[in-house]
Amino acid sequence: MKTEIPGFRFSVACAGIKQTERPDMALMVSNPPARWSGAFTTNRVKAAPVVMGLERLKAGVPLSAVLANSGNANACVGERGMADAKTLCRELARLLKVPENQVLMASTGVIGQTLPLDRMKDALPSLVEGLGSCSLEDLATAIMTTDRYPKWELSRPDRYPDIGIGGVVKGAGMIYPDMATMLGFFFMNAGLPQSVLREITRLGVQESFNQILLDGDRSTNDTVLVLDNGTALSGNRRADDVAHAVSMELGRMMKSLSERIVDNGEGVTKVVTVLVEGAKNRQDAKCVAESVAKSPLVKTAFYGEDPNWGRIMAAIGYSGADIDQESVDIYLDQAQLVSSGQFAGGVAEHKAAEVMKNRAYTLRISLRQGEATHRLTTSDLSVEYVKINADYRS
Amino acid sequence: MKTEIPGFRFSVACAGIKQTERPDMALMVSNPPARWSGAFTTNRVKAAPVVMGLERLKAGVPLSAVLANSGNANACVGERGMADAKTLCRELARLLKVPENQVLMASTGVIGQTLPLDRMKDALPSLVEGLGSCSLEDLATAIMTTDRYPKWELSRPDRYPDIGIGGVVKGAGMIYPDMATMLGFFFMNAGLPQSVLREITRLGVQESFNQILLDGDRSTNDTVLVLDNGTALSGNRRADDVAHAVSMELGRMMKSLSERIVDNGEGVTKVVTVLVEGAKNRQDAKCVAESVAKSPLVKTAFYGEDPNWGRIMAAIGYSGADIDQESVDIYLDQAQLVSSGQFAGGVAEHKAAEVMKNRAYTLRISLRQGEATHRLTTSDLSVEYVKINADYRS
Repeated sequence: MKTEIPGFRFSVACAGIKQTERPDMALMVSNPPARWSGAFTTNRVKAAPVVMGLERLKAGVPLSAVLANSGNANACVGERGMADAKTLCRELARLLKVPENQVLMASTGVIGQTLPLDRMKDALPSLVEGLGSCSLEDLATAIMTTDRYPKWELSRPDRYPDIGIGGVVKGAGMIYPDMATMLGFFFMNAGLPQSVLREITRLGVQESFNQILLDGDRSTNDTVLVLDNGTALSGNRRADDVAHAVSMELGRMMKSLSERIVDNGEGVTKVVTVLVEGAKNRQDAKCVAESVAKSPLVKTAFYGEDPNWGRIMAAIGYSGADIDQESVDIYLDQAQLVSSGQFAGGVAEHKAAEVMKNRAYTLRISLRQGEATHRLTTSDLSVEYVKINADYRS
Repeated sequence: MKTEIPGFRFSVACAGIKQTERPDMALMVSNPPARWSGAFTTNRVKAAPVVMGLERLKAGVPLSAVLANSGNANACVGERGMADAKTLCRELARLLKVPENQVLMASTGVIGQTLPLDRMKDALPSLVEGLGSCSLEDLATAIMTTDRYPKWELSRPDRYPDIGIGGVVKGAGMIYPDMATMLGFFFMNAGLPQSVLREITRLGVQESFNQILLDGDRSTNDTVLVLDNGTALSGNRRADDVAHAVSMELGRMMKSLSERIVDNGEGVTKVVTVLVEGAKNRQDAKCVAESVAKSPLVKTAFYGEDPNWGRIMAAIGYSGADIDQESVDIYLDQAQLVSSGQFAGGVAEHKAAEVMKNRAYTLRISLRQGEATHRLTTSDLSVEYVKINADYRS
């Protein structure tokens, strides 16, 4: 029995959703039922499990189980989508002997195909039977789609050895063909109040999964769930100290896993942190960072290891932010490429070109207009990206 | 003497800006001086000639000459940029014996390098001497950068045979390495009032060059100028009839040339018209069209000839527009791919796949929320695009 975080048990199964031998279903169970919070895609086109998640979250009922599947997004299939999700949750609730509204689904994969309901129902008994047989790493492996490696973490906040925090994510994020999804599941036993749980989920996601940008596409299925079953010893400690420690650790874990999603993206050869400083306000800082991180011309220059600062200047200029081109400085790690809106010279360019040979580096843009900053992690746009996304299905 | 539009003369020269044997300077002269209007890039980072153009436009002085160069954008070079542009305009004004503020420049090419001022000054006398030796086609050829073919038109509005309208553009637009520029020059002799000229320029550009979208990058140099020297016979006709006829013809010409810019883009293998119908309002229609046209996943599917409607649905969903996923219909030419938010079936998919083998087709998205529409012409995202933009300068 693997119990990395007290009260949580995991299992995986292969239901043939993807018609491969690899696991494509995963079950996560908490006993006792967990308080939870979540973050879902803001896409107006939402998969059925996302709609269900938003309803359950609003209802405020605790969660006993989460059923995840890959290979099929259960999106854009009309009323069948919600009906199938409900059927699976009902059947699982019966097997687990818990209320139906304590069971939630999360799906990722191809849009517009109905779930293979019978095969998935048939897999449920063995999933329930197998509970406790899987580690976080097994779970992270089972929810992989085109991910190149499993992404998971387990840690304990300093000073509170009885509190465990675990996280698994699958990504390749927006890069994966057919908009398959970023999914993230976080498990803890800290016993935080609901309001605190909601707030640290919101903040954690904002500073991590909302600050990675591969191609700017957003999925119909993106889901992050944070479950807290409160099984840690209560003992003699201040609730706000615990909340602070857990918040810091969860935030760090989300940040770390989000960066691994970028690193792991298909076709990614460069992982670039875009750091905008000195903007007039947060909105401007964000505009500039996203404009640069989305620009195909900038991203192909990352891929070509070309310190093509003119493209960066242009993307800053059309971002919509209030900037003064004569005040812009641009650095690649320590190499200053642009000084007051002008080229910093051949030596600097040579140094910048050296930096760009690395797999990971920071592009720092100083606007010198104010105090606001924004940070994003992004990737290059490679020939491999286009090939992967053009060749899929053909 | 080539006089396709009375009063306008053109010439070209090779000043070695690009270190090739091809012409890289062009001179356009109007005698008498022309009323004019213009549209310039909205990028906050503006090249010196764009700043100069905006100033001249505000001042309301007529234009005697436009000097264009390729190979160098004269952008992001500090005070040198404006000083060099002024020096060239002053020298040209002296040679042409016209006031300095009746001469304007337009540049396109690499950002961040100063102009080769001496070589360009040396080329001016031969440009002036050669005036009248070039046709619109010669002019269109001279301003090409990575364009594959010259793009120009000459026409006369029905019923007014003495009015000529000519246009030349260079594009490869945002696709060309280093953000080189869309430039467009339009010449006419209709004698329209300034207010009408301003309005038909604004409308024409809005419905043409502002409705093409290759990679969403916007240059520091984009410039469209419309010159009218009023040399047509006045005679017995109603001014508003003339204005209407010229407006229609100029609009048609701009639209046609803008579509050739897309067709001509480097790495472009597909020219796709995105037509959004039934949006709640114009803003929503535009959001949806741009979201779909910018999505790397949609654009790689165009390239892969893959009717991957899930990606289109997702891009509609995250556009920010107020849509109802259950009301969305999607067509590729006549083939309906999505009906009420769901896949229209395998036969439809097969037909859509056939449509996508064409070089040009229409992607029609019906939102069924209202009456507003928006149309964009866009391209695919190809392996060639990435290679061209990654390999440049290396």
